[in-house]
Amino acid sequence: MNTVFLNGEYLPKDQARISVDDRGFVFGDGIYEVVRVIDGRIFAWAEHASRMARGLGVVRIPFSADDVGGLEAVCNRLVAENDLKAGEATVYMQVSRGAAPRTHYFPPAGTPPTVYASASRFTPSRDMRDTGVKAITFPDFRWARCDLKTVNLMGAVLARQAAHEAGAYEALMIRDGMLTEGAATNAFAVIDGVVRTYPLSNYILPGISRQHALDAARDVGVRVVEEPVTQQQMLAAPELFIAGTTTDIAPIVMLDGKPVGTGAPGPVTRKVQAAFLVRLYGTAAVAR
Amino acid sequence: MNTVFLNGEYLPKDQARISVDDRGFVFGDGIYEVVRVIDGRIFAWAEHASRMARGLGVVRIPFSADDVGGLEAVCNRLVAENDLKAGEATVYMQVSRGAAPRTHYFPPAGTPPTVYASASRFTPSRDMRDTGVKAITFPDFRWARCDLKTVNLMGAVLARQAAHEAGAYEALMIRDGMLTEGAATNAFAVIDGVVRTYPLSNYILPGISRQHALDAARDVGVRVVEEPVTQQQMLAAPELFIAGTTTDIAPIVMLDGKPVGTGAPGPVTRKVQAAFLVRLYGTAAVAR
Repeated sequence: MNTVFLNGEYLPKDQARISVDDRGFVFGDGIYEVVRVIDGRIFAWAEHASRMARGLGVVRIPFSADDVGGLEAVCNRLVAENDLKAGEATVYMQVSRGAAPRTHYFPPAGTPPTVYASASRFTPSRDMRDTGVKAITFPDFRWARCDLKTVNLMGAVLARQAAHEAGAYEALMIRDGMLTEGAATNAFAVIDGVVRTYPLSNYILPGISRQHALDAARDVGVRVVEEPVTQQQMLAAPELFIAGTTTDIAPIVMLDGKPVGTGAPGPVTRKVQAAFLVRLYGTAAVAR
Repeated sequence: MNTVFLNGEYLPKDQARISVDDRGFVFGDGIYEVVRVIDGRIFAWAEHASRMARGLGVVRIPFSADDVGGLEAVCNRLVAENDLKAGEATVYMQVSRGAAPRTHYFPPAGTPPTVYASASRFTPSRDMRDTGVKAITFPDFRWARCDLKTVNLMGAVLARQAAHEAGAYEALMIRDGMLTEGAATNAFAVIDGVVRTYPLSNYILPGISRQHALDAARDVGVRVVEEPVTQQQMLAAPELFIAGTTTDIAPIVMLDGKPVGTGAPGPVTRKVQAAFLVRLYGTAAVAR
């Protein structure tokens, strides 16, 4: 039985139902997070909680940083109740602006947010990590607040579906001739041995894995530059990779059907990936 | 008791619950419509149905034009069951991509869409129609597919909330220095006696009321031009108005706290509004 959390209750997922008036359902008016859990330990909780609290604050859903802090115990309980304390798992958390008669503007003060969380078994793909993934390019027609992890995800849905149909894992988003990020990951190019990625701004998600990837690169003496990569630079780059909570670091070995560099994961990506996995798994990284 | 429609069933709204896995809730992955019902007659059903079918087709939610056609009977039954056959009402309809384990790409073929509809009493505001409304300007940071009536509405929510807090009814969206539309209406300027509005494109909703407003203007010999209005032209325009399914035509008399023209509804707006109301209500327009 899959036990989930909904508005203070732990209950079987098939009994977890929300109102048709939920603003998550009718406006996409909610903020979410996905955290990685390894042997019962949440990876980078503080960073995820901080990003979630910021997002809720920006869109003014009344769910405070303390409230977000309280979700750590919810995650832990879901992991325990679903027998996920050994091995790997993810926990999905979403807070919407609650259920209320439909008005575009906010519902009356006191409308309780809808708080939902669920835990699932997660098996990282060794294949993806070792041999890399395919990607496509896709026009980045999303809104200009991609720094907010809202459930307004139609752009990402359409991009990922296009990738899926092309037999690819990810869609690399191109805005104004620049690579911004993947549909559900951050994206990096290795150019002249330097890791380049779009700077933190309103056009990309401030990825927790993005930050760990950059830190991992620095850990092992790889230079990083947070500057946009043009589509041309991307197409000529000898190495490309993506990072995300359920992706870790995945080399991109084919882009739009053409090999990236040699068509195999490159040496800089490998080096950053290894350092990233140590951050994620500790010294047990090699064993995973 | 409020009877709504959910996935083939008619049931009390408080019993209409959707799965936490619904893609409407976790991705905003759905398309909606709102229709106006006057004395039991749906206004402009064919246009609404056609727009909904197009939107579902573009985002590839498997709910055909015939399926959308079938919602007309659902609307009529909801109107009847909720005692809304006399007077005015609105019906909200939403089709999401259904409930399935969370993947950004589409769920497996055969996943049934979630189909929801509800009817409500609607009382048009005479005051809004007669004395006009206030508006604010707001940066249009929405995505570049505003032609699709999806439930990815966070941008509109934040814009309308800003308007609400300013004591205004609508937020006029400015993209690249141009007035595109209102957060939940289409927007028009009267310049040199000509009605100007943003052309149909990916940046605005192809409003049913927009089309009726333009047709109404032509009906009474007012020239219309579908070309963008710059922010400067907007600020200098002697008349501004908005149109929408629950707004009809509302003159904008204050913008960002300053009077538009004389600060009272202008003569061209009045003329177009009168012709619009005849379209909506027929010859009974004067009596409403």
